[in-house]
Amino acid sequence: MNPVLADSVRLTDTGVYILDRREFPFQRNWVMCGTAEDVARAIEDLVTQSSGPYFATLYAMVLAAREASGLRPHAARAYLEQAGTRLIRARSTNNHLRKAVHAVLSTAAGSGDDLVASALAGAEAGDALYRARCRALGTYTADLLPFEGGVLTHCWADLYLVETVSAAQHMGKRLRFFCTETRPYLQGARLTAETLAEMGVETTLITDGMGAAVLQSGEVDALVTAADRVTMDGHVVNKVGTLGLAVAASAFNVPFHALVQAPDQDVLTGADVPIEYRPGDEVLHTLGHRTASDKVRGLYPAFDVTPPRFVTTIVTDRGPFEPHRIAEYYEEGEPNQ
Amino acid sequence: MNPVLADSVRLTDTGVYILDRREFPFQRNWVMCGTAEDVARAIEDLVTQSSGPYFATLYAMVLAAREASGLRPHAARAYLEQAGTRLIRARSTNNHLRKAVHAVLSTAAGSGDDLVASALAGAEAGDALYRARCRALGTYTADLLPFEGGVLTHCWADLYLVETVSAAQHMGKRLRFFCTETRPYLQGARLTAETLAEMGVETTLITDGMGAAVLQSGEVDALVTAADRVTMDGHVVNKVGTLGLAVAASAFNVPFHALVQAPDQDVLTGADVPIEYRPGDEVLHTLGHRTASDKVRGLYPAFDVTPPRFVTTIVTDRGPFEPHRIAEYYEEGEPNQ
Repeated sequence: MNPVLADSVRLTDTGVYILDRREFPFQRNWVMCGTAEDVARAIEDLVTQSSGPYFATLYAMVLAAREASGLRPHAARAYLEQAGTRLIRARSTNNHLRKAVHAVLSTAAGSGDDLVASALAGAEAGDALYRARCRALGTYTADLLPFEGGVLTHCWADLYLVETVSAAQHMGKRLRFFCTETRPYLQGARLTAETLAEMGVETTLITDGMGAAVLQSGEVDALVTAADRVTMDGHVVNKVGTLGLAVAASAFNVPFHALVQAPDQDVLTGADVPIEYRPGDEVLHTLGHRTASDKVRGLYPAFDVTPPRFVTTIVTDRGPFEPHRIAEYYEEGEPNQ
Repeated sequence: MNPVLADSVRLTDTGVYILDRREFPFQRNWVMCGTAEDVARAIEDLVTQSSGPYFATLYAMVLAAREASGLRPHAARAYLEQAGTRLIRARSTNNHLRKAVHAVLSTAAGSGDDLVASALAGAEAGDALYRARCRALGTYTADLLPFEGGVLTHCWADLYLVETVSAAQHMGKRLRFFCTETRPYLQGARLTAETLAEMGVETTLITDGMGAAVLQSGEVDALVTAADRVTMDGHVVNKVGTLGLAVAASAFNVPFHALVQAPDQDVLTGADVPIEYRPGDEVLHTLGHRTASDKVRGLYPAFDVTPPRFVTTIVTDRGPFEPHRIAEYYEEGEPNQ
C-alpha cells in the first residue's frame, strides 16, 4: 500500500494541495494553495517538511506558469524566475528547493498553453528523477538488510524509508521496525510510525532514550537513518539523536547505514558543518502543551554530526560506500538532478 | 535553598501530607493521608516515587501507632506489624519500604503515648539515617566534580542529586547542569529541572536524544546519575536512557559517576537483573495526551543495564569505587539501615 506521506503534494486544476504534517496523523488536513505565493507561505509555515517542500516547489512553479500564461514569453520568463526566487527564500537552508526551481526553469518556455505544458513537463521530470534516485537508494539499502529481522530508525527518513521498505517487501524480506519518537517534534511517533504501519510493517515505538537498550537487546539487526547531509570525509549530519544511536550501535556491534542521495561536495569535513540551533523553548513543550518546569531554559541543537568511525555504510543512489570512501561517489561525475 | 522535593512528606497532628509528584511542578498539591491505609493507597496511586515512598512509609507507621495507641501492647504490636505488611505490599518492588517499616518496628513498644513516641523516634531515626547516607554520598560525588563546569544528569536522582549539589555549593564549586527530559514520565523536565532551579543552579533542559551531542560538544565534564541498583560485578541498573548516555560519555571521554547508597548483595551480575516492562501505551502518550500514531504499539523497558566498561565510578555512602571493585564495599561489613 502506498502511504499517504509518499504522495503528500498534489497538483489539481484549482491549485496545489499539501498535506499538513504539523497535525498528522491526528488530523489529515490538506492545505489548498491557489497560487505560487500561497505555496511559498505554506512552506514558511512548516505545513510540510523533509521532501515535501521539494515537491511543493515543483508544482508551485507550474502554478506560476499558469499565472504567467497570459504574458509574452520574455515577461513570462521573468515572472517565473521571480516566483522561483521567492520560493527558494521560503526555506533557504533546503538545497532541494533550488533544484526544484531549476528543474522547471530548465524546460519552461514560450507563453500560453505551451508555457504551462513545458513547465509541467519540467516539474514531472523533477518529480520522477527524485523518486527514481530514492528508489535506487532504497533498493541498495534493502539489499543490506537481513531476510528477517529488526531495524531501528530515527526521526523521519521520508521517501528513503518508504523506498527501502518497499524494496525489502518486493525481495520478500520480513522486517520489524523500531522507531524513536524523536522529540521535540515527534516526527518518529507521528510520521514514521504511521507510515510504516500503513505499509503493513510491524512497528514498535520507543522513546528517544530507549535506543541503546534496544540495540543491546539483540532484537535489532541494523540501524537505518536518513542523512540530511554527508561530508566528503564521511561525517553524517542528521536529526539530533542520530549520534547517540550510532555510538550505541557501534558499541553493541549493530551496523549503521546512513542514507543520502549523494554526499555534499561543498562540505569537506564534520568541523565545517555549523550546527543549527532552533528555539530552545520547543524542548519545553510537546505538541503545544508545556511539559517542563518554567524555571529553566531549553537547548535545541537541530542536528548532530556522527563521525565516520561510528558509521558502517553510507548508502547513495549509486550504491553503498564505506564512509571513508564516500568521495568516490563522484568518480562517475555529477549526478543528474 | 532547600528544594520542596527534598522535604515532600510531612507528618502533622492530623496526618501525613505527601506532595503529589504526578502533576508537579505544574501544580503543587499535597495529598492529605489521615490513616496508614490512606498512605498505602497514595503510594499505590503513584502520588510519590523515588525516595518519597520510604519517607511516607516511615510516617505512615507513626499514624498506625496513633491508631493503635488505645490497644494493649501485644495487640498494638500486631496492629503495627499488619500495617507494615500492608505498606510494603503497596510497592513491593521497592526495598526501601521494608527498611522503613523495620526502622519503626525496631523502636516502637508499649501502648498509649509511649507507643506513639517510640514509633516516632524510630521514624525520625530512619529519616535521619537515610539523609545522612545521601549526604555522605553527595559529598563524595561533589569531590569528583570540577570547580567549574557542566554536569549532565538523567531522570531524577532525588536526594542523591540534592545532596551532591548542596555539597558542591558548600565547596564553592560552580556547576551548570544539563538534564534530559526523560520520556515518557518527564521526571527530568519536571522534577529535576524544577529542583535544580530551586537550588539556584543554572539548568538547561534537553530531549533524551540530545545527550550524545552535548557530551560530544565539550560542554559537559561529567555524567552523573542515580542507580536504582548496582550488581556485585559493577553493572548499573537505572532508568532507561542511562545506558545510551553512558556509552556516549565513554566514546567522548566524559567520566560517568553512578550514585547508589550500596551495591545489592543479592544480585551478582547484570544477567541476573530482570528488566521490568511497563505498559507500552505510556510511550504513546505525554502527560495524558496522545502523541503517537494509533496504528503502532509502544515498548517501555523501565530500566536498562549499563555494563561496567562504560562506568567510571560508583559513588556510595562509603566513598567512590571503580566498578570492578564495588564488592569491596562490604569489606567493612553491612551498613546501618
